[in-house]
Amino acid sequence: MNLKAEIINPFLMATVSVLKTMASVDPVPGKPYIKKGNSAKGDISGIVGITGDTEGSLCITFSKESILFIVSKILGEKKEEIDEEVKDAVGELTNMISGDSRRRLEEIGYHFIGAIPSVISGEGHEVKHITKGPILSIPFNIDSGQFVVEVCFK
Amino acid sequence: MNLKAEIINPFLMATVSVLKTMASVDPVPGKPYIKKGNSAKGDISGIVGITGDTEGSLCITFSKESILFIVSKILGEKKEEIDEEVKDAVGELTNMISGDSRRRLEEIGYHFIGAIPSVISGEGHEVKHITKGPILSIPFNIDSGQFVVEVCFK
Repeated sequence: MNLKAEIINPFLMATVSVLKTMASVDPVPGKPYIKKGNSAKGDISGIVGITGDTEGSLCITFSKESILFIVSKILGEKKEEIDEEVKDAVGELTNMISGDSRRRLEEIGYHFIGAIPSVISGEGHEVKHITKGPILSIPFNIDSGQFVVEVCFK
Repeated sequence: MNLKAEIINPFLMATVSVLKTMASVDPVPGKPYIKKGNSAKGDISGIVGITGDTEGSLCITFSKESILFIVSKILGEKKEEIDEEVKDAVGELTNMISGDSRRRLEEIGYHFIGAIPSVISGEGHEVKHITKGPILSIPFNIDSGQFVVEVCFK
């Protein structure tokens, strides 16, 4: 699948919209770029496989700083550690960003189904997508730290 | 989806068959069990979303010891560290176990599609499946270390 702007925008807009709605956080997207081979590194990630018009994967990788800031905003209480509540929140955010992206893709004629998300936690872990196709990477900045949304297709 | 034996066996047999064929390793399956809420911990994992008759996820989590043993057998040279070659091998094994499981499920009337696998590396990382459904866990022992295959459905 060609990773042109019409495919990129739904993921970008879904991410901004879900974080704004759920956490009153306004993430500032950096320039999306296409990469080959490199991996995202972070402290907690949500990953969900997608199928439909083609097979792919959506991954959101947060630094510890950024996810504690986001989940503190969602819960209205200061989180200091990546605990079960934070992991569940990452699962929920991944589900919502995946769902909202797919809804936006439907509007422009693409049909995708989301699988069950997994949440990976572990300081400095690395996520590598196993595809020969390009990987779209969208970095986001928030008031406290960074996170990255990665989308790849077959 | 009900995680009865007819669903469990294809994943168990695919894992044994792929490791035997690819690595001449005979993994000894422990008793599969259904768990709720707990997470797999390991040093490298392959995860792939599945869709079709229902949505789900397949995850294989290896200890460092077990994956270095397996990849050394595949490559015919001793691997000492989890490098890019080992990560790619985990991606390939995940793809093959996912594919072989789905082929076996087709034979008994279930239809599933696999998404793009991701490989997560990071010492002692944890994988949590975001589902209200049961999680099937199959532990395997090999000559050197353990790994676990987890399957969950919606």
